[in-house]
Amino acid sequence: MSSKIPETMTAIAITEPGGPMVLKPEKRAVPRPAAGEILIRVRAAGVNRPDILQRKGAYPPPPGASDLPGLEVAGEVVALGEGATRWSAGDPICALAPGGGYAQYCVVPASNALPVPHGFTLTEAAALPETFFTVWHNVFERGGLKGGERFLVHGGSSGIGTTAIQLASAFGAYVITTAGSDEKCAACLELGADRAVNYRNEDFVAVVAEATQAKGVDVILDMVGGDYIGRNYQAAAIDGRIVQIAFLNGAVASADFSRLMLKRLVHTGSTLRPRTAEFKGAIAAALERQVWPLLAERRVAPVMDMIFPLRDAWRAHERMEEGQHIGKIVLDVE
Amino acid sequence: MSSKIPETMTAIAITEPGGPMVLKPEKRAVPRPAAGEILIRVRAAGVNRPDILQRKGAYPPPPGASDLPGLEVAGEVVALGEGATRWSAGDPICALAPGGGYAQYCVVPASNALPVPHGFTLTEAAALPETFFTVWHNVFERGGLKGGERFLVHGGSSGIGTTAIQLASAFGAYVITTAGSDEKCAACLELGADRAVNYRNEDFVAVVAEATQAKGVDVILDMVGGDYIGRNYQAAAIDGRIVQIAFLNGAVASADFSRLMLKRLVHTGSTLRPRTAEFKGAIAAALERQVWPLLAERRVAPVMDMIFPLRDAWRAHERMEEGQHIGKIVLDVE
Repeated sequence: MSSKIPETMTAIAITEPGGPMVLKPEKRAVPRPAAGEILIRVRAAGVNRPDILQRKGAYPPPPGASDLPGLEVAGEVVALGEGATRWSAGDPICALAPGGGYAQYCVVPASNALPVPHGFTLTEAAALPETFFTVWHNVFERGGLKGGERFLVHGGSSGIGTTAIQLASAFGAYVITTAGSDEKCAACLELGADRAVNYRNEDFVAVVAEATQAKGVDVILDMVGGDYIGRNYQAAAIDGRIVQIAFLNGAVASADFSRLMLKRLVHTGSTLRPRTAEFKGAIAAALERQVWPLLAERRVAPVMDMIFPLRDAWRAHERMEEGQHIGKIVLDVE
Repeated sequence: MSSKIPETMTAIAITEPGGPMVLKPEKRAVPRPAAGEILIRVRAAGVNRPDILQRKGAYPPPPGASDLPGLEVAGEVVALGEGATRWSAGDPICALAPGGGYAQYCVVPASNALPVPHGFTLTEAAALPETFFTVWHNVFERGGLKGGERFLVHGGSSGIGTTAIQLASAFGAYVITTAGSDEKCAACLELGADRAVNYRNEDFVAVVAEATQAKGVDVILDMVGGDYIGRNYQAAAIDGRIVQIAFLNGAVASADFSRLMLKRLVHTGSTLRPRTAEFKGAIAAALERQVWPLLAERRVAPVMDMIFPLRDAWRAHERMEEGQHIGKIVLDVE
């Protein structure tokens, strides 16, 4: 195998902190897999909001990770580190990457890869890891959402939102979501949401109260923050769980915490990237068991927004920052 | 037995919402135990902060509860409702009451009573239920404090604080506490706290950082609120749990929630009074198994501040509102 692997590759580097135009193609050495790792010939790479923060210099990669952006890839296994026995060269896989996904080759821990679901293109597969790992851990493991419960996800038309709507719905929850236009709301309903709130002209607290006979929602997945935090406390049910995964509207905010106490809410949150490969491997195993069969049946699928060539990664970032996208933005890698 | 039970009793009523002087003795009918309940001839009744809120009209009793104040009592069982088979007339017990503790007779669910610990006076026993149920549930069940973990409790010299310090220390936690004077800090150290912070001249965030080698504390029990909320997020360790049981400094506050997300904190809270008798019964069973043996050995004991006669309940409230007390204030019932 190794005879086919070149010494250098094309990758998209962050040449300096700044706007989309700082993303530029560079020649880089092809990385080598250490023990427990695999080298992937990348065919598609997902674009995620943390990539934008990293580009702006606001989210430095964790120690040991590549300085290149990119947290999820799909492609073929081309080399195996010591002990990475599950995979064989040529296997089509998708994987969560510790960084370095915007490149022709990428190294990932073997346990953080999953087979490409039956019938999926590599482009679709590249759209899975980041949102599916994030939603599975935060909504089902951390938030403990169960069938029959009521679920509210903000940013319903985002990659996270479209995944959360589908998974929560597939596992039997009643799903309410918020989005910023009627078109986005329609897309959310299409995906299985029971109620979509256009936040520009409706108040989600009032809608939740009405839709749940004033009981509130059992789990909230929030990436908005700001004044949504206090409003989430209003919208939550007794014993509700609120999981914070980002703060698009700011992390410093005021709230009435008496609601948290009186309703016995649990407000928590997490970020995926700094967790250990072992932790992510456990999520991968749960996903393969519980979610990959749903993907193979197309009961759940990634919502694809647009696909850009790797060299135009800057356009992909521009698209995400404009906020008009519905679903996932993916880079196609030659 | 019932021949000895009079028709009427002396109780302290809240004659109107207001200051301590609205607490006045009244003749009331002796309540009768319903199925699953027991009637107690009260010999001592604990005073708690919710009693003050109720007196001010800010904390109405839950549906079905007595309008009389008083959430914990000790005395003898004098009558049994149907099915209340654990107890016999004459048993000395202490119990969490749904209300009505400031009286000569009080009805409680049989499952919410516990035997008077070996060697305890009824006055001491009356000081146990409210704080021990609250601390056990919030620190050990909800907060999940384990031996070897680091624990911060605010208001260390209060009834809750003195109980939390002793129990956390008895179960092997490293205990940091805050209090408002050097005298109160000394009392906390005496009870087993490893470090006491006089919040008037020390910053608990800095002390926690120093005392934990910047790791932070695993569990925080907070009844202060206000700007302590954001500071608790600073003082908490990765995967820390913060349990809110009151808001002496206010419930509306601003905080930096990025700390909650990045450290994967769990911020939660609860109030005991509205929970079901079954729920409180489960706490009672856990306490009897895990804490009552410690009381019998005097490894843990209530800190007694002052004892007032029942008719002087207003003075007990005044004492608590002045904030100079250390430990529990109890009413002696003739």
